[in-house]
Amino acid sequence: MGTVLTLCGGVGGAKLALGLSRVLRPDELLIAVNTGDDFRHLGLHISPDLDTVMYTLAGVADPERGWGLAGETWQFMEAISRFEGLDWFKLGDTDLATHLYRARALERGAGLAEVTKELCDAFGIAHRIVPMTDDPLQTVIITGEGELPFQDYFVRLGCRPRVQAVRFDWVEMARPNPEFAALLNNRELRAVILCPSNPFLSIDPILSLEGVRTDLQSTRAPVVAVSPIVGGKALKGPAAKIMEELDMPASNLSIAEYYRDFLDGLIIDNGDRHEAPAIREMGIEVKVTNTVMRSPQDRIALAETTLQFAFGLIRR
Amino acid sequence: MGTVLTLCGGVGGAKLALGLSRVLRPDELLIAVNTGDDFRHLGLHISPDLDTVMYTLAGVADPERGWGLAGETWQFMEAISRFEGLDWFKLGDTDLATHLYRARALERGAGLAEVTKELCDAFGIAHRIVPMTDDPLQTVIITGEGELPFQDYFVRLGCRPRVQAVRFDWVEMARPNPEFAALLNNRELRAVILCPSNPFLSIDPILSLEGVRTDLQSTRAPVVAVSPIVGGKALKGPAAKIMEELDMPASNLSIAEYYRDFLDGLIIDNGDRHEAPAIREMGIEVKVTNTVMRSPQDRIALAETTLQFAFGLIRR
Repeated sequence: MGTVLTLCGGVGGAKLALGLSRVLRPDELLIAVNTGDDFRHLGLHISPDLDTVMYTLAGVADPERGWGLAGETWQFMEAISRFEGLDWFKLGDTDLATHLYRARALERGAGLAEVTKELCDAFGIAHRIVPMTDDPLQTVIITGEGELPFQDYFVRLGCRPRVQAVRFDWVEMARPNPEFAALLNNRELRAVILCPSNPFLSIDPILSLEGVRTDLQSTRAPVVAVSPIVGGKALKGPAAKIMEELDMPASNLSIAEYYRDFLDGLIIDNGDRHEAPAIREMGIEVKVTNTVMRSPQDRIALAETTLQFAFGLIRR
Repeated sequence: MGTVLTLCGGVGGAKLALGLSRVLRPDELLIAVNTGDDFRHLGLHISPDLDTVMYTLAGVADPERGWGLAGETWQFMEAISRFEGLDWFKLGDTDLATHLYRARALERGAGLAEVTKELCDAFGIAHRIVPMTDDPLQTVIITGEGELPFQDYFVRLGCRPRVQAVRFDWVEMARPNPEFAALLNNRELRAVILCPSNPFLSIDPILSLEGVRTDLQSTRAPVVAVSPIVGGKALKGPAAKIMEELDMPASNLSIAEYYRDFLDGLIIDNGDRHEAPAIREMGIEVKVTNTVMRSPQDRIALAETTLQFAFGLIRR
């Protein structure tokens, strides 16, 4: 029946990935996750999007905060802040074990994909989650206040600085994860789904990897995106704010244009159905449905709708 | 008035060090602590004796376990054991911050003494605690089951293997802490106190450092030890067991003989007063008192008795 590839960032992406994992068998789905936000902190290796996707699929993610683990405790954080003032990035006691294990595994020479597999196994996740790359691509935000490492922009400064551009350092040396790259070029690829993640911060790093964009243009499989924009706003995160800062209306039409060179279909929210005709005029199919995933049922419903929509499309 | 130097291991030593810190001003006391048990674990740098002394003086040590912090939680430990089976060394969530901070500080090039000072400052400890050395001297236990790194012998195997000898790896490259070495050679040195710590595992590593033993032999300051043996047993730890394994009766007399080349006085417990004459025959003064420190008052009382005894002695 072939395999579905999904490109995924953090929270919003993880919700759809969870839905997809509920309706596809482990061998029918590959989740390629953004690692441009990865960073070292306190000697730990933190992969925010991988962790969010893992924790979400393992059913241990905190449902309200949008990051980290449910029932987390903060004893370590309280103690370390006695020694240094680095308390802007919150590390829970349980979450810490993931980052410490990963840092040590990488130090002993394991690749990020290998460590991710080990962590997924430990969490009992059967579906395949891979980092977009094992290489140290780093997202840098160019703002009115200078160049900022991703976590400084995103967490420490709460996305307040005005974004002028986004750069992916070391991208020219980064190779896409082999399993991900192989699937993109495989006739077994059944569809590609871009999760409702931030186009600039979560999807672009994946697209920037050598061969990914051209493979998306040339694949025979349909490529669909679930729009992260609902009613002119992003449900979570700074996508809409950044679009405005980049002189792009915060609309589904902008999303369609942004992915135009490879996109076959866009899924937009019921409230945005008025945007459908303009997008269709671009030669991109549109599916209008509820894209706001509040409950587990919403995630499964959106995953089913997305797959149905994608499977029904024929590539241009 | 001069400065008192105390040589100190873990639990028993920390109790007397606490007592001394209650009756001496910060500038009147230097606590030199064994670091032969230090090790790296999960990428952290653990200094068990330094931590016990720090936590004890900071008033945050767990009063019952004998190691770690009061009110500790174990979320990290539970989480990391999902990824690897290294659960024999218990790491509390709060304790972890100490080891992680230390590991990072050492990685950035700080010395152990410098990190210890930073940690003591953060814990509000005014008295000076120094590692016996900044260099990586490592205690190795030679047993019937082979050579064992200290923590394997002590924690993982619970001191069960029969000890044949103890070796201090890299001792020839280790230099004593400069503040400690300078005080040993300073006319301001008022007394040296060996805490009731394990002679083989806690005091010997300190004595093995270049110059320490000869300085103790030649100093004008009185050198006294508080015996770790009470009623033929060690109050805590394997001191008595090891003495027997090394064909040494587990007695205060053995302790006196072990330190004979530099010891001026030995403090033994009330119950062991029958041993006093034989020790005095060796030319070592004896003070008989309660050496079992159950309460904070016991620690202060023993500290006061020890200082009085030491200050009253004249060097041979």
